Amino acid sequence: MGDAVTTYDGWYATHDFRTIDWAAWRKLSEKERNVILDEWIDLTSHFVAIDQQRKGSFAQYSILGHKADWLLIHLRPTVKELDEIKQQIQKTRLADYTNTPYSYTSVVELSAYQVRPGTDPTTDPRVQARLKPELPNTEYMSFYPMDKRRTGNDNWYMLSMEERREMMKSHGLIGRSYAGKVKQIITGSIGLDDWEWGVSLFADDPLQFKKIVQEMRFDEVSARFGEFGAFYTGCRLSQEQFRDWFAI
Amino acid sequence: MGDAVTTYDGWYATHDFRTIDWAAWRKLSEKERNVILDEWIDLTSHFVAIDQQRKGSFAQYSILGHKADWLLIHLRPTVKELDEIKQQIQKTRLADYTNTPYSYTSVVELSAYQVRPGTDPTTDPRVQARLKPELPNTEYMSFYPMDKRRTGNDNWYMLSMEERREMMKSHGLIGRSYAGKVKQIITGSIGLDDWEWGVSLFADDPLQFKKIVQEMRFDEVSARFGEFGAFYTGCRLSQEQFRDWFAI
Amino acid sequence: MGDAVTTYDGWYATHDFRTIDWAAWRKLSEKERNVILDEWIDLTSHFVAIDQQRKGSFAQYSILGHKADWLLIHLRPTVKELDEIKQQIQKTRLADYTNTPYSYTSVVELSAYQVRPGTDPTTDPRVQARLKPELPNTEYMSFYPMDKRRTGNDNWYMLSMEERREMMKSHGLIGRSYAGKVKQIITGSIGLDDWEWGVSLFADDPLQFKKIVQEMRFDEVSARFGEFGAFYTGCRLSQEQFRDWFAI
Amino acid sequence: MGDAVTTYDGWYATHDFRTIDWAAWRKLSEKERNVILDEWIDLTSHFVAIDQQRKGSFAQYSILGHKADWLLIHLRPTVKELDEIKQQIQKTRLADYTNTPYSYTSVVELSAYQVRPGTDPTTDPRVQARLKPELPNTEYMSFYPMDKRRTGNDNWYMLSMEERREMMKSHGLIGRSYAGKVKQIITGSIGLDDWEWGVSLFADDPLQFKKIVQEMRFDEVSARFGEFGAFYTGCRLSQEQFRDWFAI
Amino acid sequence: MGDAVTTYDGWYATHDFRTIDWAAWRKLSEKERNVILDEWIDLTSHFVAIDQQRKGSFAQYSILGHKADWLLIHLRPTVKELDEIKQQIQKTRLADYTNTPYSYTSVVELSAYQVRPGTDPTTDPRVQARLKPELPNTEYMSFYPMDKRRTGNDNWYMLSMEERREMMKSHGLIGRSYAGKVKQIITGSIGLDDWEWGVSLFADDPLQFKKIVQEMRFDEVSARFGEFGAFYTGCRLSQEQFRDWFAI
Repeated sequence: MGDAVTTYDGWYATHDFRTIDWAAWRKLSEKERNVILDEWIDLTSHFVAIDQQRKGSFAQYSILGHKADWLLIHLRPTVKELDEIKQQIQKTRLADYTNTPYSYTSVVELSAYQVRPGTDPTTDPRVQARLKPELPNTEYMSFYPMDKRRTGNDNWYMLSMEERREMMKSHGLIGRSYAGKVKQIITGSIGLDDWEWGVSLFADDPLQFKKIVQEMRFDEVSARFGEFGAFYTGCRLSQEQFRDWFAI
Repeated sequence: MGDAVTTYDGWYATHDFRTIDWAAWRKLSEKERNVILDEWIDLTSHFVAIDQQRKGSFAQYSILGHKADWLLIHLRPTVKELDEIKQQIQKTRLADYTNTPYSYTSVVELSAYQVRPGTDPTTDPRVQARLKPELPNTEYMSFYPMDKRRTGNDNWYMLSMEERREMMKSHGLIGRSYAGKVKQIITGSIGLDDWEWGVSLFADDPLQFKKIVQEMRFDEVSARFGEFGAFYTGCRLSQEQFRDWFAI
Repeated sequence: MGDAVTTYDGWYATHDFRTIDWAAWRKLSEKERNVILDEWIDLTSHFVAIDQQRKGSFAQYSILGHKADWLLIHLRPTVKELDEIKQQIQKTRLADYTNTPYSYTSVVELSAYQVRPGTDPTTDPRVQARLKPELPNTEYMSFYPMDKRRTGNDNWYMLSMEERREMMKSHGLIGRSYAGKVKQIITGSIGLDDWEWGVSLFADDPLQFKKIVQEMRFDEVSARFGEFGAFYTGCRLSQEQFRDWFAI
Repeated sequence: MGDAVTTYDGWYATHDFRTIDWAAWRKLSEKERNVILDEWIDLTSHFVAIDQQRKGSFAQYSILGHKADWLLIHLRPTVKELDEIKQQIQKTRLADYTNTPYSYTSVVELSAYQVRPGTDPTTDPRVQARLKPELPNTEYMSFYPMDKRRTGNDNWYMLSMEERREMMKSHGLIGRSYAGKVKQIITGSIGLDDWEWGVSLFADDPLQFKKIVQEMRFDEVSARFGEFGAFYTGCRLSQEQFRDWFAI
Repeated sequence: MGDAVTTYDGWYATHDFRTIDWAAWRKLSEKERNVILDEWIDLTSHFVAIDQQRKGSFAQYSILGHKADWLLIHLRPTVKELDEIKQQIQKTRLADYTNTPYSYTSVVELSAYQVRPGTDPTTDPRVQARLKPELPNTEYMSFYPMDKRRTGNDNWYMLSMEERREMMKSHGLIGRSYAGKVKQIITGSIGLDDWEWGVSLFADDPLQFKKIVQEMRFDEVSARFGEFGAFYTGCRLSQEQFRDWFAI
């Protein structure tokens, strides 16, 4: 039997990427569009309230490029709540004007590599706060899913715990050198969705996404073992900007 | 000639993943929607009866994320019955409001690795019960298809029977350590569908899906030889919740 | 120059996989549907006649799963005839209610590995019958395309003729051990379509598809050199069942 | 710096693969269809004239299988002309009844491997004729794109010029042994389109496509270094047959 | 920790590839088309003004083949502006007649490999001009995204800085030998989009795209480490030609 790392898991997460059918949306009258937006804002103000009560977290982004237009991130204590959110959204009229080319279901995760010896992660308040994080209120966001490679001599899961810990430590040092510039939330999805992890980065200067991911790519753990999915870059969309963003 | 493992095969299975066209569904009047749901519930109450008579098994799930909205699993003694079910569903009006982005055709399988020496699997009641299983009534479900790798030095099918048996034994021990937390049904589809196996996991705590799959990933048989398809996570949808789930 | 194996080629084949647009089909009146089916049956009764006169062969199948609903297989002496069949089908009204997610263009093939020494395949009646086969009238069918691998040390096309012949012989023995249970037609498509071969299996018990393909997968020629495409499983659809299958 | 082979380049080429929306086409009246075909034939008779004046070349094919229905090949001295042809076709009404699932943009190419020592390819009339070829008037056509592999030990671009020349010579001998049976036009697209080369084969007996490609596959340059895209097989469609092909 | 190369980053870039729905466009009256084009030209004349004031750059191209019809490239100092451009375009009526099969979000990049020792890239006017480039006014354009390979022994990110610098130097020499024939703009997208770099080439003779990319492919850095995405070739579309290009 292998030497699996222990993980500590917090809130469940949905990254819900959508495209907007602007042609159909434009065909509606302004009045109809407003009725639909009212219904939507009514629903999301509930999500905002949950966020403010720290019973979960919620944020929206305007996504660059053709892969998606709009991203909604939800963090919640249970999968059941994420399922309910999906049903609630699908039943809004606004959803009829969107498609969902991508999504990601996962859970906020810390691994034992990252936990300071002597800490009890199940009670330590700092660890607990990281497991139930508020989505940072930065201007920009970057998201990508990733796997650890299992190919020939580059098989992460065949390394010893000690080798893995060493490499993750070096990786963590890079991350820490971006403190104050880039915040990251790691969510795990082994057994839940197609990739093993999702990385959500938050910054006020989007160049820092490039800097940190590039620097990490030269680090052995990424260079030899990182397999990356699609990268999405977005601009925060506040509840206030939202109606404007949908205006025509 | 290779040293193929013997398998014991039970009921055939269809995992039928569907998306719902909510926009078209919303355009119907409530009365029309009810007529369509009545027709559907009429058909599925027949599937439920088959399940209760232990002539097969049937369950439905609400799926998270964009890959599917709804999963129907059918177990039946013959492929003919699965083909008939497909025709019956396609001819309901509700099917017109769905698409089928994915499905999986397979048969419940036990391999000789898993059979206790001295047992005759063709008559042993425990083995027979596992080959014709009732779908567990848990709150959550996870499904993923998989292959055993055949690449360079990591070629499962070129290993000796003894090497394979050893590795599968270690794998089985992990599975057994989740007894009471995760139930699994393995279905094989070599020669029937695109992957070699489908893994259906059932639990009341969805975090256990992550725990078991992650622990197994560090085990040599997965680390070196596992190739995984898409992962789907769902919440059980009872016959009672069904009408509500489709209400608008 | 390499040591290419000689092949003997017979009838050309089209495997024409279709999905049915049941929603559009349902919108027609029963009368319209009957007119369309009459036109179709008129065309296919010509295909049946060709089959009965042994100037080709023709069969239809109901396919399981989401990848296709319906499969038509045509065998004919020339590519020209297959092209004409495509045009004839496309011009029926029934074709408007279908899509073609997959197809396969190939030619029935025997390789020199399989020919008994001393036989002249160009005149031997048994060989000739295998090159111009009647599609077997079994209840179930399985189809998959495949390649021989050309990767690193597992490069089929860099092996000597002798090595290839040895491995194919072992493979042929497995095939022969299923005599009476599984009939197979191998069609080659190098230079004609995307894969190198198509394997069409025919049986009255679909479990035999799983048994034979699994047993072969442990054989070196598949274990090291087989690359497989999608697998399709179907139930024979007789000319008599056809109208019923399309009834609503 | 690597030891790049010199190439000699002639006419630019577009392989324009289309599917026909027969359902929409059928909805038109015969009169409307004739108006649309008249407009099309008017445009293509200009392409035919270019071909006859040897200022380019043009041919059409009926394609087998689901990947495409119709192929148009254009050869022209400049990319500008290919761009204009694209605009001209897109602006015909017939184009509205087609989709373009695939295309290939390239330029007729001879490499220094193929040029006889002592020849000046920029003036030699035989070389010049091969660089500005007339599309052969055979009954059948086969097209596939390809790359030379750059993987591990099988990296074509890391071989010495001498090794490459040796292998290409052997490959050329196979090609020449099909003289009179198969004509080939090689077009290169490095820097222009997704694959490195397109191979267009022309024959009156389509079995020769299978024979030549199979024989080449056992030759080291294909066995170790060939990566192949999709294969398309078609039947020549003359300007005379064209109206009939579109008739319903 | 790895030995990451320093990069200097300039303007952000969007490569926005679109297909045109000519069938829907043709259905409009000429008057309606003109209203829609007027709105579009109004928006883009703003983009042209930005370009002329050197606050960004903007160009349009007619793309060959089926992958796209039309390319818009925007360079701007901030991601925010690219996001605003996306919203502005999506809200034009012309956008309703287009789809976006591909796009690429990146930032103009120079790496320390390319900077002459003794230069301070953050102030040097030549470096700064290359980081904020005007899109060259050539007749033809070629675009492709690329990665550096991380596979087995061919892992760019595991090489030493010295090895990487040596190889990039040789690569740069090839580039420089095309001075006056091909201009290139390299944009980086690690952490921003799916590939690591985008290469935009500009030339008046499109054959030079083939020559330079082919010559580079034999150079070790491409031969062993280059992984290439799709290649797009286009013809410059001036603001003057634009209305004509859309005329029917």
